[in-house]
Amino acid sequence: MDISHPAVHPVGVPPAEARPPPRVRMKEWQGMPATAGGLTLRLGQFSFAVISFTMVVSISNFSTVTAFCYLVAAMVLQSLWSLTLAIIDIYALLWKRSLRNSLLVSLFVIGDWVTATLTLAAACASAGITVLIDNDLGACAQNHCGRYEVAVSTTFLTWVLITMSFFFTFWLLATR
Amino acid sequence: MDISHPAVHPVGVPPAEARPPPRVRMKEWQGMPATAGGLTLRLGQFSFAVISFTMVVSISNFSTVTAFCYLVAAMVLQSLWSLTLAIIDIYALLWKRSLRNSLLVSLFVIGDWVTATLTLAAACASAGITVLIDNDLGACAQNHCGRYEVAVSTTFLTWVLITMSFFFTFWLLATR
Repeated sequence: MDISHPAVHPVGVPPAEARPPPRVRMKEWQGMPATAGGLTLRLGQFSFAVISFTMVVSISNFSTVTAFCYLVAAMVLQSLWSLTLAIIDIYALLWKRSLRNSLLVSLFVIGDWVTATLTLAAACASAGITVLIDNDLGACAQNHCGRYEVAVSTTFLTWVLITMSFFFTFWLLATR
Repeated sequence: MDISHPAVHPVGVPPAEARPPPRVRMKEWQGMPATAGGLTLRLGQFSFAVISFTMVVSISNFSTVTAFCYLVAAMVLQSLWSLTLAIIDIYALLWKRSLRNSLLVSLFVIGDWVTATLTLAAACASAGITVLIDNDLGACAQNHCGRYEVAVSTTFLTWVLITMSFFFTFWLLATR
């Protein structure tokens, strides 16, 4: 339409934009960085990671199994990452910042993907050991199967939430 | 520039397009569906999945451990998926089809993500058990640690390749 009507504007008045830039529409997507949904996901990840960590650490001889030591390390990393991102989200929500900087979003995507992969790896390795103790060896009498199962379940829940964050952030990076 | 020169074209001759659509540029990305790179990734996934499957199945008592049974099931699923996608890629390359249909790409993304997750889960669960047998219990004399380690390594390699396919396809879906 603009082609058939040459633009005539008073000096200093910018021409009206017919189409808003796509980032305005994307702001509506709850779950992306700097949204209430995104903050909820981060707080959920942090809470489940802390529960999983506490469950494993409360078992006296957990350190005899490498997979559980790895689970503890992965949960520490995951909780620190989620807490950091939650603080950034709170800052962005309070001061109305958009967090759409390309470098920042790339950093979020890489961090989310790395922690999601490490968390899933920890959950699966621990689940393998728990199923071995419980089903294959039937040795729950000498081991704390219940606590291990809670730890594995909360680790899987952490992974579900961090994967959701990853998808939202990766989509944001790809469609910027 | 077009604004100052009104378009005057003979009937039947379409106006020249100043900017080619973005999908022309994306075709160059090796690794996406219907490219030689994409086909190589699929064949690599299939080969590593078959090696992993063969290694575990060659051990007589692998079925006593649930994690290894799950590894076998995951490798069967992964090899079938990768083989199917490889055949689709070969078809697309031979008949010069683009495979940029929205529904088809969504199906590839979902399939890649599901098989990548199941493959990583199988690799980590088996790695947890292998490390338990080898490092924590020191029971390699009674078990086939070497074969388990090869199976776990090839499963991780399968996961690396399927993850690369997933990223290429997800990027294609997000930027279509």
